[in-house]
Amino acid sequence: MGKNTAIPSPPSVRYEDAFPSSRQVLVDGDRVRVPMREITLSGGEAPLRVYDTSGPQGRDVRRGLPRLRDAWITGRGGVADRPDPPGSGSAAGLPDAGGRPRRATAGVTQLHHARRGAVTEEMEFVALREGFAPEFVRGEVARGRAIIPANINHPELQPMAIGRNFLVKINANIGNSAVSSSIEEEVEKLRWATLWGADTVMDLSTGPDIHETREWIVRNSPVPIGTVPIYQALEKVGGRPEDLTWEIYRDTLIEQAEQGVDYFTVHAGVLLRYIPMTARRVTGIVSRGGSIMAKWCLAHHQENFTYTRFREICEIMRTYDVSFSLGDGLRPGSIADANDEAQFAELKTQGELTRVAWEYDVQVMNEGPGHVPLHLIKENMERQLDWCDEAPFYTLGPLTTDVAPGYDHITSAIGAAVIGSYGTAMLCYVTPKEHLGLPNRDDVKAGVIAYKIAAHAADLAKGHPRAQAWDDALSKARFEFRWEDQFNLALDPQTARAFHDETLPAEGAKVAHFCSMCGPKFCSMELTQQVRDYAAGKGIAVAEALDAGMQEKSAEFRRGREVYLRTAGRG
Amino acid sequence: MGKNTAIPSPPSVRYEDAFPSSRQVLVDGDRVRVPMREITLSGGEAPLRVYDTSGPQGRDVRRGLPRLRDAWITGRGGVADRPDPPGSGSAAGLPDAGGRPRRATAGVTQLHHARRGAVTEEMEFVALREGFAPEFVRGEVARGRAIIPANINHPELQPMAIGRNFLVKINANIGNSAVSSSIEEEVEKLRWATLWGADTVMDLSTGPDIHETREWIVRNSPVPIGTVPIYQALEKVGGRPEDLTWEIYRDTLIEQAEQGVDYFTVHAGVLLRYIPMTARRVTGIVSRGGSIMAKWCLAHHQENFTYTRFREICEIMRTYDVSFSLGDGLRPGSIADANDEAQFAELKTQGELTRVAWEYDVQVMNEGPGHVPLHLIKENMERQLDWCDEAPFYTLGPLTTDVAPGYDHITSAIGAAVIGSYGTAMLCYVTPKEHLGLPNRDDVKAGVIAYKIAAHAADLAKGHPRAQAWDDALSKARFEFRWEDQFNLALDPQTARAFHDETLPAEGAKVAHFCSMCGPKFCSMELTQQVRDYAAGKGIAVAEALDAGMQEKSAEFRRGREVYLRTAGRG
Repeated sequence: MGKNTAIPSPPSVRYEDAFPSSRQVLVDGDRVRVPMREITLSGGEAPLRVYDTSGPQGRDVRRGLPRLRDAWITGRGGVADRPDPPGSGSAAGLPDAGGRPRRATAGVTQLHHARRGAVTEEMEFVALREGFAPEFVRGEVARGRAIIPANINHPELQPMAIGRNFLVKINANIGNSAVSSSIEEEVEKLRWATLWGADTVMDLSTGPDIHETREWIVRNSPVPIGTVPIYQALEKVGGRPEDLTWEIYRDTLIEQAEQGVDYFTVHAGVLLRYIPMTARRVTGIVSRGGSIMAKWCLAHHQENFTYTRFREICEIMRTYDVSFSLGDGLRPGSIADANDEAQFAELKTQGELTRVAWEYDVQVMNEGPGHVPLHLIKENMERQLDWCDEAPFYTLGPLTTDVAPGYDHITSAIGAAVIGSYGTAMLCYVTPKEHLGLPNRDDVKAGVIAYKIAAHAADLAKGHPRAQAWDDALSKARFEFRWEDQFNLALDPQTARAFHDETLPAEGAKVAHFCSMCGPKFCSMELTQQVRDYAAGKGIAVAEALDAGMQEKSAEFRRGREVYLRTAGRG
Repeated sequence: MGKNTAIPSPPSVRYEDAFPSSRQVLVDGDRVRVPMREITLSGGEAPLRVYDTSGPQGRDVRRGLPRLRDAWITGRGGVADRPDPPGSGSAAGLPDAGGRPRRATAGVTQLHHARRGAVTEEMEFVALREGFAPEFVRGEVARGRAIIPANINHPELQPMAIGRNFLVKINANIGNSAVSSSIEEEVEKLRWATLWGADTVMDLSTGPDIHETREWIVRNSPVPIGTVPIYQALEKVGGRPEDLTWEIYRDTLIEQAEQGVDYFTVHAGVLLRYIPMTARRVTGIVSRGGSIMAKWCLAHHQENFTYTRFREICEIMRTYDVSFSLGDGLRPGSIADANDEAQFAELKTQGELTRVAWEYDVQVMNEGPGHVPLHLIKENMERQLDWCDEAPFYTLGPLTTDVAPGYDHITSAIGAAVIGSYGTAMLCYVTPKEHLGLPNRDDVKAGVIAYKIAAHAADLAKGHPRAQAWDDALSKARFEFRWEDQFNLALDPQTARAFHDETLPAEGAKVAHFCSMCGPKFCSMELTQQVRDYAAGKGIAVAEALDAGMQEKSAEFRRGREVYLRTAGRG
């Protein structure tokens, strides 16, 4: 869905350094224990618990994460170890994958269970994580309005839901660069993205070590991993799209599914007859996967094989509970091309394919744009809800203008927040390097933070029951001059503290009842305290005092009197 | 409306360095010449002209800018030099202000002229600058839906309009810091902000040199200058709000009006009876000006003197054509306080005051929030339009979440773009240092760029006739691999180029037909070229070829045929 990432030699960052005064706590459910980040506050305030995507801390990359879901998956039955040794088998030094890959021998997908009325451990995990009843989660999955991407070969996963009645999620892209990097570096990219809040990570690696890299990433990932399998298939045919075959693609799907990839981007909606619709565009086809498929179609004068073989793909997906992320290969790459014939033709086909996947109990979300001006965003959401029967929407931004290369995390966070507030379930991040180069470590963080902002702004707008508590805790800390609490409650505590230090570095300033903007002589925040003191001085509760005062005086005001609050003290 | 700014020793940045391949051109009207930035493009593309706020370049700060409007103002008559020498007279070394300050002896405001059917030079300037008919501009000013802040003592101004049928404008705040800075440094802050696109600048200076600093700023400013006069009045009484008097405030208004300040923030809507409404808020009163007035009201048990003396203030404003920016002293300072009783009570009073100002032919805009979640933004715009009779709205962001201190240029650019698309006419920028400290040079630029993005995204959504040409030019350059054009068309060319250099520093990469994201082996942008080549090979125009092809083949498609484009070449 996006671009590769080159992060030079990232040093490990500790959870405690990124989030001072935070610790990971486990919240017990009936069958599951859910991690939350608990932020300790001062001033007698209760600690605040927030959603935590960072996973188990301090694990040796070569051991991988704990296999949380093993017992759940085997306990539900319907799975068996793959009978044959893997064709593209485990490389030496890989973490112990706990035996051969599993395959389904009966229905195993979350959608399968949900439709049959069963609340899986994954659903209970999601319910506890977001503050809903497990039955509500099951219902959302059953009707296809939410997915829980959870490959049966990714037992390390901490389950999460993507759906418009849940918290808006964000995806970050990683991928090895042309310059070979070590396994530790690849896993560090994953950890860096999830530390700051990435809910899923797409591994867009290319090159010769793609299989092994992915293995390490999946074994160390607490979040769902998505891929675009056509990228690896293309590697297998030397980078020539016209040499792609169904068989090579099919084997790639199976290879990745057996490793535990949780969702696949499949550009099955790029139909041959839609390609000419892009010819008059300002920016033609900008999706890499979409253009690979388009090139194959043109070269062979044949329909997209992922469309013609879509039912066979569904059979593979349901064997591992891999979710579809139906790609938008014809998404607009510029404001001029937004909401055009090609884009909406593909979206309609995505809807058709969504219903086919559901026939197989395969979970589905739909990818969306791209570049869309503000006034055209709503139409995207409305058509997707309508044509794709409320399957979760997963958009790339959208960027709301083309004129700011270097700042596309901002141009797109605007569109992402808006489309999120309309119901988009997951937002694929965009970094400041979009259109220009490969994101480094700082760019990845900038992209993740911008998208956490967009997602949270959307959560507030949608009224997610847990969203506003965070804002209120921070604003209360701000108002009460609990500076350390304000920093610790920030999405990025380090940056908030550093910015304060730039102007008022002294430690004493962290407890001062003023800030650098207005200085110690006069501070607007203190005025309210005076208003409150006045009310308290009357010996009654604030609310009553105010109401009483208003009633007493309102008649005088109507007579044009200018004097008020006669009994209040001066200052 | 915001915070002071401390920019340490800013070096001058040349226009040509900020905007390579750009030059300032003057577009001739009947009576005016309007500056535009013309971006030279390669590949046979016509140059693109964009709005330019940077003013005349390379001027000696001690000479000030050319007095463009002198002839217009005196030519229209109704003005006379002030009879008495100034009370707080010109300091030595100030630029020659061209004689004594002017005062009106008859109606001089843009609203006065507009209502009488006269198209002023300022209106013609605005019309040419934005691509409208002069009569349209006059009509918008006449009905109060747009203002042209243009003090008759600010002849250096290049006129601009603030109104919802014009380009969305942005304001940047500057102001001297506690540490005394030189005149050149103060003017350099102004130049820095307008270089990157600030449409107006608010001078929020405090301290002993406030008068002289402002004089230098106005004499060197091509954009309207706004102030919050109560700040200076407070300085005159040693920082004690309770010691403020109407007389001190009135004299301050006149002093600043005679210097040429174009708009004043006046918190006349902070009524005594509204103050208790803030007591139960999470963040009370967060406006500095609002809290000064509130403190005065509480201390004296009297109604806000800027409210009771509002008609006298109007008399002053119309004497110089200073526009009102009716402050929102009770704006919400947190998500929890958005759209509450206090906020809307004040907004209703702002509407009442707007109509009073119009009685005096004084131009008015209304300030708005602040902190507002996405779903409550529209109500702000709707009520303002309704209660304030479509006077221009001028909002601070709004911030759409409180959880990201350090990134509030982003949290607020989201809200700014949205409220701009609904009709807000000007957006007061927020820098990354908001809530934490004083913005430095980089922060000011980050704030301005984020707000140019928000404003442009809103312009696209509103369909401003000139907005999308910029996006299209950049996207076309991107698609055609005209890298230098892409950089030069960016809001911030330097950053765009630097980001590209990080990954592909070689000069050859600037003409390469690929980029670092997909590499030279495969590039999605080239696919469309193949589609176009196919069409061209048929010997007919692209559009016709595609339509013809679609018609020929559509019947086959309906029969389920999978083969298409049989005649197209391989690859």
